[in-house]
This record gives sequence, structure tokens and C-alpha cells, in this order.
Amino acid sequence: MLPDWINSECPAPSGAHRESALARQAQLTKPLGALGRLEEVAVELAALQAAEKPAAERVPVVLFAGDHGIAAQGVSAYPPEVTVQMLHNFAGGGAAIAVLAHSLGCPLEVVDVGTLADGQMRGVVVDKPRRGTRDFSVEQALTPADVAFVSEAGLRAVARQADHAPDLVIFGEMGIGNTTSAAAIAAALLACAPADIVGSGTGLDAEGRARKAKVIEDALTRHGLTAATPVAEVLAAVGGLEIIAMAGAIVAAAQRSWPVLVDGFIVSVAALVATRLNPSCRPWLLFSHRSAERGHAVVLDALGARPLIDLDLRLGEASGAATALPILRLACALHNGMATFAEAAVSGREA
Amino acid sequence: MLPDWINSECPAPSGAHRESALARQAQLTKPLGALGRLEEVAVELAALQAAEKPAAERVPVVLFAGDHGIAAQGVSAYPPEVTVQMLHNFAGGGAAIAVLAHSLGCPLEVVDVGTLADGQMRGVVVDKPRRGTRDFSVEQALTPADVAFVSEAGLRAVARQADHAPDLVIFGEMGIGNTTSAAAIAAALLACAPADIVGSGTGLDAEGRARKAKVIEDALTRHGLTAATPVAEVLAAVGGLEIIAMAGAIVAAAQRSWPVLVDGFIVSVAALVATRLNPSCRPWLLFSHRSAERGHAVVLDALGARPLIDLDLRLGEASGAATALPILRLACALHNGMATFAEAAVSGREA
Repeated sequence: MLPDWINSECPAPSGAHRESALARQAQLTKPLGALGRLEEVAVELAALQAAEKPAAERVPVVLFAGDHGIAAQGVSAYPPEVTVQMLHNFAGGGAAIAVLAHSLGCPLEVVDVGTLADGQMRGVVVDKPRRGTRDFSVEQALTPADVAFVSEAGLRAVARQADHAPDLVIFGEMGIGNTTSAAAIAAALLACAPADIVGSGTGLDAEGRARKAKVIEDALTRHGLTAATPVAEVLAAVGGLEIIAMAGAIVAAAQRSWPVLVDGFIVSVAALVATRLNPSCRPWLLFSHRSAERGHAVVLDALGARPLIDLDLRLGEASGAATALPILRLACALHNGMATFAEAAVSGREA
Repeated sequence: MLPDWINSECPAPSGAHRESALARQAQLTKPLGALGRLEEVAVELAALQAAEKPAAERVPVVLFAGDHGIAAQGVSAYPPEVTVQMLHNFAGGGAAIAVLAHSLGCPLEVVDVGTLADGQMRGVVVDKPRRGTRDFSVEQALTPADVAFVSEAGLRAVARQADHAPDLVIFGEMGIGNTTSAAAIAAALLACAPADIVGSGTGLDAEGRARKAKVIEDALTRHGLTAATPVAEVLAAVGGLEIIAMAGAIVAAAQRSWPVLVDGFIVSVAALVATRLNPSCRPWLLFSHRSAERGHAVVLDALGARPLIDLDLRLGEASGAATALPILRLACALHNGMATFAEAAVSGREA
């Protein structure tokens, strides 16, 4: 059901550059380990980029948007038309990620992989198999052909970033109803109870969350989804177009040896899907933040991920990844720019 | 014992600007609260700066260095000469904070408030009452006159930053042995067991930590320090010159209505001292990071502080505050630059 390229092995990070970066960290004028995770992330980037001097300067942000038939079941605090309204806001510079990308000097591409919008929109790439998913509480969200098409939309989006010669890439999402689809995918793949993974999304109260969990529980039963169901079937049953596009984009980026700075709950579910489809992409994933959305902790645990920041963010749009980017940049600046004990004529530890 | 200006009331933050900033956050195109602590910090800065548009662009970093007689007791993994060697490394651009300040466009001033160095050093302001503290395991670390002098060195350092018209300021420290002095001050002021507050500093093992705790415990007994001892007497008994300078600088900055982005364990102890000397400075303190140094959690709790990041940093030098600065900058960019629901014609929550 999914295209063959998804199975192609991703390159391995460079062990030699990792060793060399670790050796350099031990020579810099600070107690070893005193810069904690800044040291780790610099070493990690050096290994991924196979570089003496890791960098996080050229970082395109690609935002995938889609609509969700499941929104008809009252699972979001906002009406579905907000997805398309926000597309205009991304392109117009007023949305959070647009402000962040501008501040950080990151090129931002917005891709409509399945919103309800008709036709073209200024500043938005349209590459979609259909307008919104079907309501998965009553039928399959997508056909196998839709799933295949939109995974390739992720591949195409990655190909369009090549001109930026990315040091790493950030993917983000927008789509009213997409925490419901993401929670359904995660509950199926991880065999966990929807109630343990369902969060407030854009702002549901306890009653709303209970309704959302029930919708997912019923859908998993209706579609017969278990941990044994092939991933592609889970995606067709309860998937979201932007989530599948991101999973494809993550695999495609890793195949090009581009590190991916993963955003919050929904992108992490896409990362989970990507690692299930092609486990060799896992080393290319760096995790930016821990979202306030409840299910994120479960998905991060499943991925063995330890994000850099935890600022109670729950917006999506790649806003958490963008907020963490300066930490990567400073980690690189320290790794590349600090003096060694020898260069600075500073004494080392006492014997 | 301490100069009178330390008692002068700090201005109150602007409640009107806080309300106005909160109202703006509710209008921006995101679910209210979805940007979590980025929203909080923007609102906080708006109140502190009494500004419609909070800013974190102009941020001088002042680094205070001093030496410690207590280093003779084997409480550090590094020899005392490292303090002066690192002064050259700060001024020469190779130290972590020098790299960070350069990357962030922050002016960096290095002030020798009491190292063992003789005479002048290129790129270092010298403003010290003496070369190093006395060994507080055998005598008072400082005279009352030393304490007064060096608290004013903090005031003078703040006055020198006025030309930068700071949006906020960062203070940092360097001094082999200064986690021991800081832990002794905190243990006295908070009446907690030294063993509960002593950490590894630049890299002690368990045996070294136990020795350090014993040195502090004996010193508290020798000097008769309890929670009832006046702060100035605690500082004279076990203080560090750079810690007292920072306490003075914190009060002086707050008196000028400059927010202070507090670094890790040692700066937090200086902040604790500052709030004990002049409680009205507390609203001007923003907390940047949670250090891996054990005692930091205790001091943060005592201050009711919740830092922004936790990256296992334990270097000092203001490196944690500098690493958190981009988060404040992005928080301001979002607050000032995002579109409102009305401006972007985006629908609000459903009823």
C-alpha cells in the first residue's frame, strides 16, 4: 500500500565524527560534562552531519495542513474552518510559527496536503489526494491510494528543501481534529487505552476529553485495530493526511542524512509511524520539547526520546521545535568556538 | 555593615501593563495558554518593563570573579590558579560565556572583585577590596569593610551598564571554591544540613562531596551561624566576594527597574541574599535554568522560582542564563508579532 522508497535504508551516523566530537568536548575549557545536554546535542549533530563543526543554521520548516472528518464528532474546541483560515495566517506571517521562523531566519513552506480548501492559496503549496479525511467513526478515513499519495507528498516536500542545503529540518502541522487522529494512531500502534493518551488538544475540558477517548475507543473496535495491525492499515483506518505526509517526510529526510528536529505530540506520532515503517530513520530524530498534550509522554517513552525543553507548549505548528532551535545553535557555537585547555593555557583537574 | 542604598525600595512592576499583556495574549491566533511559559514570560516582561512590547534584545552580561581561601581545604576538583587563567579566557573569547555572549550579541563585562590576580588584566575591570577571601574554616572570610566594599562593586558594575539601556541583565560568576561558599551561605540562611545542599561543583566524587559538607558543617559551628544570624554576618563569615558583588548588583538592577535573568546555583544564592537584604527586589528576578548542582533545587524552592530550562548544566559563568535568553527573545517576538483573531480573520472557540 505504501511506496517502496519508504523501505530504503537510511545512512548510519558517523561513529568517527562522534568520537572526534567527544574528544574535543573533553578538551574544552570547562569541567567535562558541565555543559550537560549542550555537549550531547553538539556531539549528536557532529555524528549526524559527519562534520567536525556541527551546525544548525540552515533549518527549513515545512508545515503540513490537513482536515479531519472526525471533527464532526465534536472532538475539538474549534470549528473545522479554522484550518484553512490558519493557512492564510501562516502565509501572511501572523501565526506563531511564521513569527518564530522569521525570528530564527528559517525558510517556512506551508503545504496543504488535505485541507477542505478549494483551489490555490497564495503562499501555500497544494499537494493533496482529497479534501479532508472521512469521518473515521463511521468509515475508513482514507483509501490505500490516499495513504500512498500523501506519503509521497512528504517526500516531494523534502525534495523541495534540498536547495536550502539544510543542516537539519523541522516539520510541523495544523489541522482541526488532528490530535484525535494522532491519539487513535498511537493507541493502535502502542496498544494503549485511548483514555491514557487523549489530551485537551486545542482546549477540551474533562467531559470533552472523555468524549474524545470514547470516539477513539469505538473506532479502534470498529476498524479492528490492534498492535498487530499493519501500520499502513492503521493509517488508512484512522489516519490524518498531514500526519502521514510528515511520516513520509521524516523517512525521506533521514534517507538524505538530514537530522529532523521533532516537534510535539502530533509530529512525534508521525515519527513513531516513520520508525515503524523504517526503523533505520530513528537515529536521525532529535526531540525538541515535551508538550503539555497528555499523550506526548507516552509516545516519547515509546521512542526512547528525551526532549530538550518543557515549557507547557501545546500549540503544534512546529512551535516547540522552533523554540528549541536556538539551543542547538548555541550548542554548536560552544562546540566550535570554545578554547581548549591548551589553547587558553588553563590548568586541568588536579590529580 | 552594608551600605544604606541596599535598603532602598525597588519600584513595583506595572499592573496595568500586565493586564494589557494578558488581554493581548487572549487575542492572539492560538488557543489561550497554548504557548505555555512563553506567554507567561512575555506578560512578565511587559509588566517589568512597563511596555506594550516587551523586549529582550539589549542584555549585558556581567561576570564577577573572586577567589576563595576555602579552596585550600581540597573542596574543588581544580586548583585555585584556574580562576585567574579563566579571566584571560573570558576576555580572550574562548570561555563558554564569551562564546555565548558573542553568539547572542550580548556585551560582556568581566569584573575581578577579588581574585588572586595582581594588577590589571586586559579586558577585565578590577574593583576589589582584597585578593581572595580568607579560609573560612579557620577565620572570618571577610571583614565588614570588605563586605561593604564588594557589595558596592556590584552597584558600580550595574551603573556601568546603563549606557547599554538594558532590557534586562545577566550576572554570572567564576571562582574556584565558590560552590562551597555558596552552599555555606545557603545552609546558614535556610537552616538546612550542608549535606543536603552540597553538590559536585566542578566535579567532586562522593568522597569529595562528603569532605566539602563536613568543612561547611564545621564552619557553621565555628562561626555560630544559624537562621537567626543577620545576613551581613553570614556573608562576612563564609561569603565569597563575587557572591556578595552579585547580591549588590541584583538589588541595584532591581532598583533601576531592570529585570535580572538569574543563572544557576551560585547566582541563585546571591539572589537569595539579595531578597533577604531587600525583599522588594524579588519581582525583578526571572529564573533561567535548573542546574545539575544539587543545592540549586533547594535554593529555587526557597525563592519560589520555576526556571525555564533544565539541561543538566553545571558550569556557572552565566552560561545557563545565556542559554535561556533566546527563549525570552522568542516569547517577546510572539507577543509582539503574532496576529490577533480579528486581524487574521480566524474563528474563535466554539460556544
